[in-house]
Amino acid sequence: MAKDIGIAIIGFGFMGHEHSKLIAKVDGIKLIGVADRDETQLVNVPDGVKVYSDNEAAMADPEVDVVLIVVNNNQHKDLVIQAALAGKDIICEKPVAMTVTELDKMIKVVEECGVKFTVHHQRRLDQDFRITKEIFEQKLLGDVYLLKNSLYGFNGNMHDWHVYKSEGGGMLYDWGVHLIDQILWMMPEAKVKTVFADLRNVINFEVDDYFKILMRLDNGVTAEIELGTYLLTDKQEHDKWFERHWLMSGNKGTSFLDGFEPKGKIVRTTKLLKNVKDERTMTAAGPTRSFGPPSAGTLVYEDVPTVNTTHADYFKNYVKAYHGEEEFLVKISETRRVLALMEVIRLSAETGKSVDFE
Amino acid sequence: MAKDIGIAIIGFGFMGHEHSKLIAKVDGIKLIGVADRDETQLVNVPDGVKVYSDNEAAMADPEVDVVLIVVNNNQHKDLVIQAALAGKDIICEKPVAMTVTELDKMIKVVEECGVKFTVHHQRRLDQDFRITKEIFEQKLLGDVYLLKNSLYGFNGNMHDWHVYKSEGGGMLYDWGVHLIDQILWMMPEAKVKTVFADLRNVINFEVDDYFKILMRLDNGVTAEIELGTYLLTDKQEHDKWFERHWLMSGNKGTSFLDGFEPKGKIVRTTKLLKNVKDERTMTAAGPTRSFGPPSAGTLVYEDVPTVNTTHADYFKNYVKAYHGEEEFLVKISETRRVLALMEVIRLSAETGKSVDFE
Repeated sequence: MAKDIGIAIIGFGFMGHEHSKLIAKVDGIKLIGVADRDETQLVNVPDGVKVYSDNEAAMADPEVDVVLIVVNNNQHKDLVIQAALAGKDIICEKPVAMTVTELDKMIKVVEECGVKFTVHHQRRLDQDFRITKEIFEQKLLGDVYLLKNSLYGFNGNMHDWHVYKSEGGGMLYDWGVHLIDQILWMMPEAKVKTVFADLRNVINFEVDDYFKILMRLDNGVTAEIELGTYLLTDKQEHDKWFERHWLMSGNKGTSFLDGFEPKGKIVRTTKLLKNVKDERTMTAAGPTRSFGPPSAGTLVYEDVPTVNTTHADYFKNYVKAYHGEEEFLVKISETRRVLALMEVIRLSAETGKSVDFE
Repeated sequence: MAKDIGIAIIGFGFMGHEHSKLIAKVDGIKLIGVADRDETQLVNVPDGVKVYSDNEAAMADPEVDVVLIVVNNNQHKDLVIQAALAGKDIICEKPVAMTVTELDKMIKVVEECGVKFTVHHQRRLDQDFRITKEIFEQKLLGDVYLLKNSLYGFNGNMHDWHVYKSEGGGMLYDWGVHLIDQILWMMPEAKVKTVFADLRNVINFEVDDYFKILMRLDNGVTAEIELGTYLLTDKQEHDKWFERHWLMSGNKGTSFLDGFEPKGKIVRTTKLLKNVKDERTMTAAGPTRSFGPPSAGTLVYEDVPTVNTTHADYFKNYVKAYHGEEEFLVKISETRRVLALMEVIRLSAETGKSVDFE
């Protein structure tokens, strides 16, 4: 049996702590030590875990096989290169880099050093996403024309360094990278032909806190991502999140999943209205025949498929892939495509025009 | 006191009948006669109203001051020109023409003949729209960045001639023209810089039954229109319509209006989250700090302004404007702009790219 993979966490802030807790639950990988240049963050270090004086010490530790880089986005490039030169395998937080140019420099060094390199994209394991992916792959909605991925908040601002542009702040880097990655990974064969995006600072001074992204894919799907940190809602009751929705619609029905502990259904009609000459529906707003309410029994609701993914699966996969038993969940080529798409999104938002992508 | 305006309806189908009922409720205008080349449609003609043998007879009737053209969209041009040449004033159903080229021919003849010409856009009087317009004009949401106008149905198909492309069928001509007109009329000073659109035949063979239109305006608003005749929903209870929503969001709050007998609120936060270092929200889907649920009292709901518009106001305005007491609600230049925008929408949908507009 292989010895445990020794891992060091560089950057012990909010996410560093979260990683520490997840790793403790996974067999085959062991947290050796943590480093953070801000000493105030070095609290709640688990018993038996080293606290390094600096990054260099972590990367020089022979017990460490892998460094997990969990720092401000603008520091990813230098730390990944430093770790590669130290001969360590690397897991980097998303977004793997600020730009494609940065990533290409990182890839070059990583390849020269012959170390393993992957990115933490745990939201590929989100259940709402995975159920939607399952519905798509099983073609339960026929030909899909529309996929919407929405996340809304109410408080406007972001935390810590995320409010600073120079640190790689803003919601496109923080959450956009997940929401884009989910769609690209869901339909890996499809090319994104054009992108049209709106990107705003609604409340924040420096960084984006709202975006809407439309992608026209060559598989016939138009995918939409909308995120707002200050996009309020009519829901009087909120679950563990403010508002989170997946909606997918095809010519055989619509599916919706709400929340991260997703509640949802597939909706279909028992019959389509044919070309009807005389029927009409009178409403308060005047007559219409296309948008009146359904008669009883017209709509049928089906349960969605079940999935059992959790974020700990990220590290379970890591351990197996590390030993060559399966592929890493996240390939660098995939993260490069997401970064390239994010650059196109910024260009579209700046110009107000669509941008061709693939 | 002026004598009643004598009006003839050309085309006594579904909407022709509706007009007949509305006109009967309005002082100063009187239905003189109806014409339809399909005799089976000439039912329920009110007492005392003539049934003409053909359009020519209607347009030759000296009792008729105004002809109201309520026929398939592809017949608007010829009938408007015929009515103008007959010296009659004209109200034409929307869309006023199939193309800008057609409309320009119509305008030329109308101007040469010196008759009055306007278009039936009664949805400028829809209450959900007017409340949203009021919130925008009163700047109740601060700087608006997002305006969404959504209409969903469940039955897929359309009625009568609306399923035929050659007749001017499809939802962009039928409903798109209203939803676009509402937004342009709400922000008449704003230029539409670019348009990005998706237009589909989801269920229908010939004509569009789904569209999403994004417009970037130079007043800072990104306006979205989404209509689907086969876009199902999670709502288990339906009011008089299937799904109808207005959502508008600015840096001081969000407003929403649902249904054509609109129910809605303005939502604001009592305080914005500032840059918070340590707070976090654990959820089933893992940690986040930007999208957790609001604490009690964080969100406040305000009533929306009230409006009292009805579709009969269209003909009340017509009577006053006819006598020079106010302007016609709908100017031909406005309908020309909507048609031009619809052409850009089709081009964007065909090419998959945004199109510059103004």
